[in-house]
Amino acid sequence: MTLQTYKNWFSSSEKELEALYFEFLRYPSISADQAFRPELQACANWLKNQLLESGFSVELWNENDAPIVFASYDKAGPDKPTLLIYNHYDVQPVDPIDLWESNPFEPKKRDNLVIARGAQDNKGQCFYVLSALCQMLAKTKSLPLNVKLCIEGEEESGSTSLSHLLKEKASKLQADYLLIVDVGMPNSTTPAITLGTRGLTSCTVEIESSFTDLHSGMHGGVVYNPLHALVEIMASLRDVNGHIAVPGFYDTVVTPSADELSAITFHFDEKEFTQEYGCSPTGGEKGFAPLERAWLRPTIEINGLTGGYGGPGSKTVIPARAQAKISCRLVPNQDPKTISQQLKRYIEAKAPAGVKVHCTVHEGIGKPVRTSPHSPLIQALSLSTKAVYDKLPQFILEGASIPIVSELQAVSQAQVAFFGLGLASDKIHAPNECFGWDRIENGFLIMCDLLPRLADKKQDL
Amino acid sequence: MTLQTYKNWFSSSEKELEALYFEFLRYPSISADQAFRPELQACANWLKNQLLESGFSVELWNENDAPIVFASYDKAGPDKPTLLIYNHYDVQPVDPIDLWESNPFEPKKRDNLVIARGAQDNKGQCFYVLSALCQMLAKTKSLPLNVKLCIEGEEESGSTSLSHLLKEKASKLQADYLLIVDVGMPNSTTPAITLGTRGLTSCTVEIESSFTDLHSGMHGGVVYNPLHALVEIMASLRDVNGHIAVPGFYDTVVTPSADELSAITFHFDEKEFTQEYGCSPTGGEKGFAPLERAWLRPTIEINGLTGGYGGPGSKTVIPARAQAKISCRLVPNQDPKTISQQLKRYIEAKAPAGVKVHCTVHEGIGKPVRTSPHSPLIQALSLSTKAVYDKLPQFILEGASIPIVSELQAVSQAQVAFFGLGLASDKIHAPNECFGWDRIENGFLIMCDLLPRLADKKQDL
Repeated sequence: MTLQTYKNWFSSSEKELEALYFEFLRYPSISADQAFRPELQACANWLKNQLLESGFSVELWNENDAPIVFASYDKAGPDKPTLLIYNHYDVQPVDPIDLWESNPFEPKKRDNLVIARGAQDNKGQCFYVLSALCQMLAKTKSLPLNVKLCIEGEEESGSTSLSHLLKEKASKLQADYLLIVDVGMPNSTTPAITLGTRGLTSCTVEIESSFTDLHSGMHGGVVYNPLHALVEIMASLRDVNGHIAVPGFYDTVVTPSADELSAITFHFDEKEFTQEYGCSPTGGEKGFAPLERAWLRPTIEINGLTGGYGGPGSKTVIPARAQAKISCRLVPNQDPKTISQQLKRYIEAKAPAGVKVHCTVHEGIGKPVRTSPHSPLIQALSLSTKAVYDKLPQFILEGASIPIVSELQAVSQAQVAFFGLGLASDKIHAPNECFGWDRIENGFLIMCDLLPRLADKKQDL
Repeated sequence: MTLQTYKNWFSSSEKELEALYFEFLRYPSISADQAFRPELQACANWLKNQLLESGFSVELWNENDAPIVFASYDKAGPDKPTLLIYNHYDVQPVDPIDLWESNPFEPKKRDNLVIARGAQDNKGQCFYVLSALCQMLAKTKSLPLNVKLCIEGEEESGSTSLSHLLKEKASKLQADYLLIVDVGMPNSTTPAITLGTRGLTSCTVEIESSFTDLHSGMHGGVVYNPLHALVEIMASLRDVNGHIAVPGFYDTVVTPSADELSAITFHFDEKEFTQEYGCSPTGGEKGFAPLERAWLRPTIEINGLTGGYGGPGSKTVIPARAQAKISCRLVPNQDPKTISQQLKRYIEAKAPAGVKVHCTVHEGIGKPVRTSPHSPLIQALSLSTKAVYDKLPQFILEGASIPIVSELQAVSQAQVAFFGLGLASDKIHAPNECFGWDRIENGFLIMCDLLPRLADKKQDL
């Protein structure tokens, strides 16, 4: 079939596809907050029904908590390769809610842009994969290779359940190729294939002092203010050059490969960045270029500080407790378990006398991942991308993490590739997240084009 | 009249007094938040009506914002001294609201303790003053000296309106003696007179970076995280010994007087403190004893930190903005205006490249105050306190601030004294604030006893 066929498929179903996409976006499938479990489960069931109707076999794993939607099509037979595609249907929390211009779970389409939590990350990217597979099954009654889908519901909060289930489900997850459709491209005219992601570990730091909040006049200068303990500990995480001060943090960082170094030669426009984000790229470690800091260097970032009074005017209080949320991005070969223990030890050892400091490492750590640009999957994907964008994709890296990938890769024994059509301007994880409808179409076309192209590339195991 | 007479007055009216006290406590007269202005005004009107009924002339100043209740009784005539008494009817905000065991504005009496926001600070202490004056007027149809009451509604948020009105109202506020009834005693069997308070200045620090929140994976290491800027600046306020690092901060601090140094010889029990508060007194500047740090040394305290995610689990975000609330307690002769400008300059100069830092100094700064233990007011008050507690009061100092006092003292041209029956265990400014009903009675008795005792002590002007 030609690209034109796929274009016709898309344009003839465009209205229905948009309606389905909006249905998908309306589920407030926030995984970080247990209060949203029923909505998460409703969303998983919606996916299950879509896939069943199209002819996939579908299972929900971990059905009573955060379900994983596992779908498979094996009618291409054992001579054809198996492609395992990974997406997630859970989304980030929505606060600060007052900065959203519309309800995050009532999608709005403004010209080409769809605004909703999850519009891109990852419901949008999941949706073009599903649409392509379901349309191909509807139009041709078959797929040219075996396909497995693993669409999980806890990517934004550590993929805990999927991680725990991987061993048990290992045989079902066997595949030749593993395509992670959860990344982006440098700009709207530059498609890309991502050669790796950073790893992740995160924790909550809790500081406790007095039984109750105290008056800062009566007790100021007497008790150790938990907020001071917190800022002192947090400030000590990095030195004046932005280097992370946790002992052992850099010990296992390896020198980047030639492919990685070639990726960061990609042009980074500082002016454009500043216009786009409203701030210049002045963070991270001194002595490294912005793309190097984004892709090849590990980080420590405070994600939240809470304690005391934050309302109007002043309140002269010494709060009884304070809290920080921290996360680290890791690069090969940093081990998230080791790093999080180093971090915990460092933080807890900094507790001043009279103050309790406790660091809880979250589940959902993820190892950094790297893949080779020379694999059959990446070669085929490059050609499909060129067919749609009229240029070969750029090889890039991704600073963000998809913690489950290294585990999924090990269990599936597949060659991995990261693909996606996200743009930095999609504001994922932030208010007014959005995705372009043109990219839903392009993603659909690339996926349709990829399946027959990959059908002959059975991996030599 | 004898103390027994006053005791009879109290016991015969106890039920009505409790009902009135509870009425007073039910007004959520929070001054820091403009949303509570109607309740603040309702509370002022309640006070006005109580005082009018008892025979005072009453004015509400600044009636349409945060009213000041000014009441006067001048029938003792020009040969008798005038006592100006200061209280406030506004209260602190109530958060963290979930730590209250009952509604902060529905007083609960448990044995001797009344639990409510403002139960002590300052409605409780205001209430025994009012009760004594009103009972004496009811029973004897007169007061033995001239009395003026200034009960303001913005003490907890800087006394802005009263401060602005002082010049205009100077002639009305003329007095021989100024009694500030808003302080405490070291423990329940040790009454005290306070020889001074620390000064106060406070500010809000706002950090701004990107237009919107960013993903900590994609942009971690690239942009300067406002939370890191915040903790770095906040940690730089004090050195490792707890000394304040703001240049010039200590320049005008004078050596304490003999009376002040004698006050801090008062026994401080570290074990008792730790049991009472749940933390040992390990804060403030190294090299100074706890009472010295509480009363004679200036402080800088962070009162609140806000930014990023604080909910369950993790959110891998770099927030667009972050905020801190800070306050300083000052000692003679630190000038709050000078200190706040030094602080603002220091903080704003610490802004890292790519990050905006803005420090807004709040209104409601207050100078430190000191008074002499040898004044006629303090001598009379000592004897009245002895009559009720059977021992002379301890002379102490107060670490907290009543910012308006230095201004009120200047305008009234009166000799000042600080008195009060607060205990550290009253949890003022914190959840479950409380006051002892026995102290309402003792305060009532001391005030009744003081009036005739002070009636002959016209100050030589």
